[in-house]
Amino acid sequence: MAPGRGDLIPDELIADVFDRACHSREILEHVTARWGVLALAALSEQPFRFNALRRKIDGVSEKMLAQTLQALERDGFVHREARPTIPPHVEYTLTPMGRELAGRLVALIEHVESLVPEVEQARTRYDRG
Amino acid sequence: MAPGRGDLIPDELIADVFDRACHSREILEHVTARWGVLALAALSEQPFRFNALRRKIDGVSEKMLAQTLQALERDGFVHREARPTIPPHVEYTLTPMGRELAGRLVALIEHVESLVPEVEQARTRYDRG
Repeated sequence: MAPGRGDLIPDELIADVFDRACHSREILEHVTARWGVLALAALSEQPFRFNALRRKIDGVSEKMLAQTLQALERDGFVHREARPTIPPHVEYTLTPMGRELAGRLVALIEHVESLVPEVEQARTRYDRG
Repeated sequence: MAPGRGDLIPDELIADVFDRACHSREILEHVTARWGVLALAALSEQPFRFNALRRKIDGVSEKMLAQTLQALERDGFVHREARPTIPPHVEYTLTPMGRELAGRLVALIEHVESLVPEVEQARTRYDRG
């Protein structure tokens, strides 16, 4: 008994994010993307300059971090402040909206951290067949 | 004043997920990946058969959904039940660990949904320069 399309969308809120054209899906992708979530979590600890943030987030390329920060800045989660000094000093901080979101992401990260042993047991069972 | 590496890792828990070799980062990537988060959110509503889940998650390919479900099953978040009927009936449900995680992801999705108007204002400001 295959449910009809109407049955599959009982909740308007959920339905939106499942729709590829919905803006919420694009925003969700920015903030849950590999580097997006780590950049927001790092900035929830303290402001960072670009290179310090790059060192913090092990494995991110300069290009990917720049793209990530630009998308988060455009979405209004990250504030980029360039002080007109010599040499120029550019610092990234979270906006109030970014801080609230980052708090939720850090809680999610901490939850996932707590699951590592249980996930490893599940993998061992799965791989054993 | 560039902070030293020690200054950048004040919190052991956070430090782990920033380390590319840490298992928590890989798990986080499975559950926050584009299709992973939507599959978990969909399964938090009800069990799904493969094709019904594919219809629900607008835009996912058969291959990507199969890979997503397999990774989530191996991690212990999703249970795949194949009933030995003719034709075979395969249903996906969340495990208890998956249900708890999915609840957190749905809360995150709902938060992101609520931010759409504010994000759109931020984008307009950014694009205006």
